[in-house]
Amino acid sequence: MAYRALLKPLRPGTRVASLWGARALSERKFKPEKVAVVTKTTRYEFELQRYRYAGLSEDDLKQLLAMKGSSYSGLLERHNVHTVHVEHIVDSLQREGIQVRVLRRREYDEEAVRWADAIVSAGGDGTMLLVASKVFDKDKPVLGVNTDPERSEGHLCLPVCYTHAFPEALRKLRKGEFRWQWRDRLRLHLEGTGINPTPVDLHEQQLSLAEHNQAHRISTEAQRRREDGAVSCPYLLPVRGLNEVFIGESLSSRSLHHRGKPLKPHLTLSLHRASYYEISIDDGPWEKQKSSGLSVCTGTGSKAWSYNINKLFEETVKDVLTIGQTQAGLDVPLTQEFVETVTKEYNESLMFGPEENRLFFSIREPIVNRVYSTSRQRGFASRVCVRSRCWDACMVVDGGMSFEFNDGAIATISLNEEDQLRTILLKD
Amino acid sequence: MAYRALLKPLRPGTRVASLWGARALSERKFKPEKVAVVTKTTRYEFELQRYRYAGLSEDDLKQLLAMKGSSYSGLLERHNVHTVHVEHIVDSLQREGIQVRVLRRREYDEEAVRWADAIVSAGGDGTMLLVASKVFDKDKPVLGVNTDPERSEGHLCLPVCYTHAFPEALRKLRKGEFRWQWRDRLRLHLEGTGINPTPVDLHEQQLSLAEHNQAHRISTEAQRRREDGAVSCPYLLPVRGLNEVFIGESLSSRSLHHRGKPLKPHLTLSLHRASYYEISIDDGPWEKQKSSGLSVCTGTGSKAWSYNINKLFEETVKDVLTIGQTQAGLDVPLTQEFVETVTKEYNESLMFGPEENRLFFSIREPIVNRVYSTSRQRGFASRVCVRSRCWDACMVVDGGMSFEFNDGAIATISLNEEDQLRTILLKD
Repeated sequence: MAYRALLKPLRPGTRVASLWGARALSERKFKPEKVAVVTKTTRYEFELQRYRYAGLSEDDLKQLLAMKGSSYSGLLERHNVHTVHVEHIVDSLQREGIQVRVLRRREYDEEAVRWADAIVSAGGDGTMLLVASKVFDKDKPVLGVNTDPERSEGHLCLPVCYTHAFPEALRKLRKGEFRWQWRDRLRLHLEGTGINPTPVDLHEQQLSLAEHNQAHRISTEAQRRREDGAVSCPYLLPVRGLNEVFIGESLSSRSLHHRGKPLKPHLTLSLHRASYYEISIDDGPWEKQKSSGLSVCTGTGSKAWSYNINKLFEETVKDVLTIGQTQAGLDVPLTQEFVETVTKEYNESLMFGPEENRLFFSIREPIVNRVYSTSRQRGFASRVCVRSRCWDACMVVDGGMSFEFNDGAIATISLNEEDQLRTILLKD
Repeated sequence: MAYRALLKPLRPGTRVASLWGARALSERKFKPEKVAVVTKTTRYEFELQRYRYAGLSEDDLKQLLAMKGSSYSGLLERHNVHTVHVEHIVDSLQREGIQVRVLRRREYDEEAVRWADAIVSAGGDGTMLLVASKVFDKDKPVLGVNTDPERSEGHLCLPVCYTHAFPEALRKLRKGEFRWQWRDRLRLHLEGTGINPTPVDLHEQQLSLAEHNQAHRISTEAQRRREDGAVSCPYLLPVRGLNEVFIGESLSSRSLHHRGKPLKPHLTLSLHRASYYEISIDDGPWEKQKSSGLSVCTGTGSKAWSYNINKLFEETVKDVLTIGQTQAGLDVPLTQEFVETVTKEYNESLMFGPEENRLFFSIREPIVNRVYSTSRQRGFASRVCVRSRCWDACMVVDGGMSFEFNDGAIATISLNEEDQLRTILLKD
């Protein structure tokens, strides 16, 4: 309880620290024996893999990139910067007598999470999201180090000074000169017809035959339900959203296969197709909507994609203020500075803290006409229910896991204290 | 010249009517002998095809839709409304002694365009875009009739009254009680490495083997160019954008096949991946940008997707005005009415006429950080050049044609009077 009182003035609804939280205060030391370090795949590695796959050599890659105006040496440089930082992290941990396992994206799994006392993400925010995606235990601390501070924002990572001075971070952690930050995460329930609780991992870049066959599930599932007379119960998905859940029409790339032969591959593009769905906020009335999609984010996520969806630019703010004052018959000098101040204040109001126990929804590019309306384009809530009316939509969690979300499926997005992610707040 | 003088005050740059235009004024009668009527595919037809393809009967479809909470009878009703309106159009034309060919989406081709003296689009705005996509002749008039006025906006179609009274429209056209409207369209030049001028038709919902093989073009093309030492010249694409061109990272669903076996299908989602590119407006300096994509639209298109990207909601306008007046120390009563007025004026400023000879670009959800900046989030121009820095992006023209636009490709978007589409302006 005392620990939370140390925070800035709380928004209503912020949870009082649990007994466990209070105990952690007195035990606020970080002395893991075993640490898993999960590293990102650099663009250099990705391009190499991609072209090697197409049968090109590293020399070919160099030439190809040069022709495109890209810089092979630039990619290699960023790759080296990352690698040096990873080595620094690993050395620093080993010097403390800590057992270290270095894992690439594909090697990181639930077994590694169980083995480790703590997990370090060595990359950018994307790598932190990956690391978080396999942690379901509130006791397991996750620590992010930004291995390319010049290029990566690193909102979820430690302050940039620790990238080059990781031993200093470890020293503070050892001495308790930090605080735990339990970041809210979203949980998802799915119900209704035609749901498919098996996600597609968007970073895997691969579809297994099983996933291809899931495309058949519509007819199979429907068949089965009709036979069973089954009523579907809400199914809790085995994922937690650290940043956000985004729902929208997707590019459907499902190649239907029958006995190994492709039937009729579908290709439809999400860029232009509107998403149709119904939405209910905090158990309020259902509203039919048509838009470019819906984002539901945590406080952590309010600085990420949601922020980019909602932020305003100075030119827009200036135009609004200009029209406003003309309409009001005023003549306030709209200086660059004034416009900047108003813009900044507006944009800051879009962000909130990672521990406030509330979620934020925003509808992207709502389409308003005779059939569809939007009473609120965005707002805070505790619970958001969405019923898909889409042809081929999905729910994307933290930009990494994609679940089918087609006509008839109902998703409930909410928060639960159990789902919090334990991270570290270190001062600069 | 006189004809254009009849228009509202012109923006600078509006073209003076060509000699052809002036001549058309005196010949302003519409007496085609042969008319092609292109009809849309209703959702009912689509669902039927889709489920029939998966082996389900119409009864199965009924049950499946019911389980999803969708209405089979609703879909059928809209289908019937459309069909009745198509029959009305065809009857009306035939009664005038006009030869009519009714064509479905897949049957509509360049031969039909050559055969017809005029083309009627029987559907919504999507069908109009399809019809326009195969017309490259300024002399060929295109006319849109909204066959489902209750559900379809029909910005590109005749006023809704003519849907039920098409003979009245034909009467006015016969008597010259209308004016021609030549709508500006965008043209695209592509150059650079790894370009692929063969588009994917997004409405076709099918990938041929040839298109699958195009996925291999990176290595093949690169190989060939290295061997040829070829310098790529700008290639004029055989499409014209009536609404807009949208550039962004896409879902890459290209299944690589080798001797009929799938190699490694790629699946990456556009919903979350930022688009990287460089942009130059009116031959100005190149600017590196990261965003959710870039839209370049015509006056016609300024009421479509571009409008939805840029429009503001009252809650946003109210927040900006509230912050603005607090900062300025004012106390203007921000009534609902006042906020509505300001919002409306702002949103109307986003739209412009179809004949103004200028294009409008907007950057969707720009990401601003240490590396990327956006000097202008949107504005008017005559010419926009974009250089792709994307991993897997495309250029989508009117939501229907998609061109690969990967790292190194350069697109130039501009206007040319030759590309205008001849449509009809009928009063209510």
